[in-house]
Amino acid sequence: MPHLDPYFKQVDSLQDKFIDRLRDAVAIPSISSEDARRPDVVKMGEWLAEEIKALGGTVELRQLGKQPGREHLDLPPCILGRYGDDPKKPNVLVYGHYDVQPAQKSDGWATDPFILTIDDKGRMFGRGSTDDKGPVLGWLNAIEAHQKAGVEFPVNLIMCFEGMEENGSEGLDELIAEEAKKFFKEADVVCISDNYWLGTEKPCLTYGVRGCNYYAIEISGPGQDLHSGVYGGVTHEPMTDLIKIMGSLVDPNGKILIKGIDDLVAPMTEQEAALYPPIAFTMDDLHQSLGNECAIWDKKEDALKAKMRYPSLSLHGIEGAFYTPGAKTVIPAKVTGKFSIRTVPNMEIDEVTKLVEAHVNAEFKKLNSKNTFKFHIVHCGKWWVEDPNHPNYTAAAKAVERVFGVKPDMTREGGSIPVTLTFQEQLGKNVLLLPMGSSTDAAHSINEKLDKRNYIEGTKLLGAYLHYVAGEIKRA
Amino acid sequence: MPHLDPYFKQVDSLQDKFIDRLRDAVAIPSISSEDARRPDVVKMGEWLAEEIKALGGTVELRQLGKQPGREHLDLPPCILGRYGDDPKKPNVLVYGHYDVQPAQKSDGWATDPFILTIDDKGRMFGRGSTDDKGPVLGWLNAIEAHQKAGVEFPVNLIMCFEGMEENGSEGLDELIAEEAKKFFKEADVVCISDNYWLGTEKPCLTYGVRGCNYYAIEISGPGQDLHSGVYGGVTHEPMTDLIKIMGSLVDPNGKILIKGIDDLVAPMTEQEAALYPPIAFTMDDLHQSLGNECAIWDKKEDALKAKMRYPSLSLHGIEGAFYTPGAKTVIPAKVTGKFSIRTVPNMEIDEVTKLVEAHVNAEFKKLNSKNTFKFHIVHCGKWWVEDPNHPNYTAAAKAVERVFGVKPDMTREGGSIPVTLTFQEQLGKNVLLLPMGSSTDAAHSINEKLDKRNYIEGTKLLGAYLHYVAGEIKRA
Ligand SMILES: [Zn+2]
Ligand SMILES: [Zn+2]
Ligand SMILES: [Zn+2]
Ligand SMILES: [Zn+2]
Repeated sequence: MPHLDPYFKQVDSLQDKFIDRLRDAVAIPSISSEDARRPDVVKMGEWLAEEIKALGGTVELRQLGKQPGREHLDLPPCILGRYGDDPKKPNVLVYGHYDVQPAQKSDGWATDPFILTIDDKGRMFGRGSTDDKGPVLGWLNAIEAHQKAGVEFPVNLIMCFEGMEENGSEGLDELIAEEAKKFFKEADVVCISDNYWLGTEKPCLTYGVRGCNYYAIEISGPGQDLHSGVYGGVTHEPMTDLIKIMGSLVDPNGKILIKGIDDLVAPMTEQEAALYPPIAFTMDDLHQSLGNECAIWDKKEDALKAKMRYPSLSLHGIEGAFYTPGAKTVIPAKVTGKFSIRTVPNMEIDEVTKLVEAHVNAEFKKLNSKNTFKFHIVHCGKWWVEDPNHPNYTAAAKAVERVFGVKPDMTREGGSIPVTLTFQEQLGKNVLLLPMGSSTDAAHSINEKLDKRNYIEGTKLLGAYLHYVAGEIKRA
Repeated sequence: MPHLDPYFKQVDSLQDKFIDRLRDAVAIPSISSEDARRPDVVKMGEWLAEEIKALGGTVELRQLGKQPGREHLDLPPCILGRYGDDPKKPNVLVYGHYDVQPAQKSDGWATDPFILTIDDKGRMFGRGSTDDKGPVLGWLNAIEAHQKAGVEFPVNLIMCFEGMEENGSEGLDELIAEEAKKFFKEADVVCISDNYWLGTEKPCLTYGVRGCNYYAIEISGPGQDLHSGVYGGVTHEPMTDLIKIMGSLVDPNGKILIKGIDDLVAPMTEQEAALYPPIAFTMDDLHQSLGNECAIWDKKEDALKAKMRYPSLSLHGIEGAFYTPGAKTVIPAKVTGKFSIRTVPNMEIDEVTKLVEAHVNAEFKKLNSKNTFKFHIVHCGKWWVEDPNHPNYTAAAKAVERVFGVKPDMTREGGSIPVTLTFQEQLGKNVLLLPMGSSTDAAHSINEKLDKRNYIEGTKLLGAYLHYVAGEIKRA
């Protein structure tokens, strides 16, 4: 068992300094999706680089070129950093992002989103506090606390902090592919701190995310929108056809009705099923996050499995139909229905697409309609699942037990985090999601916050994790 | 047979003057739905009143008060006019409107919409040319041509010209109810010129319009929109439920699937069925107006019956779902589906609503969903059908034969014209729709026009109609 107490104590002593560090970071409004804020994103990247250098790390601000489709804008740099280069220590690659979602006070924030504001419950409000400036600074805090405690840093840290995560991670995949055999070559494991606990009390390790295949079906008939009084009953109506096809995809209990989809889903093993009952989550938690008691499931295990490891199909909406309040008597001439399937192992993107396309084509044929039918693949991203028994995970689990006194929840996420898959595929190394924030942090919403406890104990956790990794993973 | 030739000749001689009259009217942008144009609507009403007075008629500009819901606006006046008061002559009540749809050059007009512009095919382009300034001025032209030809005007004309038709006819129903036993008391028949021929060659008499029952079904579940990655498969999704219910209403061939609706539809009599084959209309005409060959029917009679005398159900759209281009992975929390049923005899509004409500309630129950369901009646307007063998119609048919040398098409309209029903119900008199414009006039669209031939021969028709009415309808 690593000797961590001096490190933990030092983190506690430095907590005000660490909060000041977060305050400085939050003060830079590094909103990657707003053109006018691009200089602030760059400024944030430079600030971060200086912090790493001040701690004795080396940094390169990697320029990624122009923003595709908006060529008047330079992409913000990717911060490639390194701390330590002892060939006897394992190399841990950590990823995070220093850009943030848009925010302005008038959106409904109780405080200025770019002034870190701490209330009497220790909630630190500010844009980027939990997503993802707090976690990124957690790694820097860990370095500093080791130094000041005189505890040897247990690994070499390879850092990859991007500035476009909230705006499509433009340029990142190419960079990772390019650096896989260069800057990232020595990485033994990957750790990403950019998601959230399932609840508020218990940390989790996340070993999978679902993929997403997004489709559109377009049905067109008349040459222009028609008046339903004049043409109702005369023409095949695209809306009627579309609604029939959309209605054939999924039933009200969420069961996907496309033939063959179920056969692609990996059977649940007993070992896997055993991961769900211990998860700290109740149906009350679910109802609270849904904002209503409209869950399909009555048992938490079923709800968690549905969310994490089974596919789902959602109907998002229709483009081209009447959508405003009021009453328009229109027969829309061309309508496009949007839906997506959340995918899990072993649903390969192309296999799923083939089944979906065959299904919607057959359904349209059944209608005997003279309208025109088109099927579009809008975008597809693959699921990611990692082996939760890998030393990267057992190291993290031990660190959680050491810092929090509990075994972590073993979770998979419903929504995709594409960078996990990119690191897994490009580096061939185990990837771990080790979140710092809790389920109530409201990332992407107004009043985003990070609890002081999550930030400080989280900093301890990141450091402890590195020690346990060093214990589990030995370099030749 | 009335001695009409001097009148006809006079109309031909005066055609330039009549076109000037239309030019002056088009030049006043009397758009009733734009606040800023309200003074122009009033100006147009006053202009029309002066024209009637100049021809020897009497006029009252009836003020209708404030516009409901927009109390800073006065409603434009309704022009109540009278020409002639010979107790031995029948009294013909004519209705039209002097307001127009919005228009600006930048919408795509080839010419200034408020400058009447005549091309080498005699097409007179301008907003309001065919809807409804041309037809309204047709009555005035008829008076003037009678005077200048020295032919006695055959009836007393009671005029009702409103200025809010394109904006909900606010105040009109109340006015008609109030004046039914006063200003309109002596009316023997009603004639409205505010619709269109079925094609471009042959005039029609219109003896019916379908009604419209407009409904919304609202389904709500989660407390707020959710991310489909995080919650897909966990919650009952309002879109899934709504699409199922909307899909249960109508089949792709336009057949209404709501139990009991068909039983309400009056059986087609042989006499009635015989009205369809002679109608000057081809499947080519239909495909051209649909802009595509997506008609449900192969025979023109079937298409015409579907359009004119059978009910239809159209799905208009969904409020609350994702509707823009692109790909949003949202689970909408609350969605409202809009649809309407075009009604025909003997579908009473409340009977239809009862069947619809029972159907959608039963369909929702089938889903076993934990979402919440609400049914809304948005608005309902009744169908109108007139006896096409009434003297009002035989008079008009004779006038068409006299002016155009053909028997008119006997048509019913698909879309509602509520004022027909109001006059029928409040006055208890036969109402005739006698259109001036043709199917290609593009009322409500860019490049609205009225053909010179339709305007001039139409003026002859209106005058001739009055003579035949005087022949058919004798006052005691
Ligand atoms: Zn984010
Ligand atoms: Zn993030
Ligand atoms: Zn009109
Ligand atoms: Zn109109």
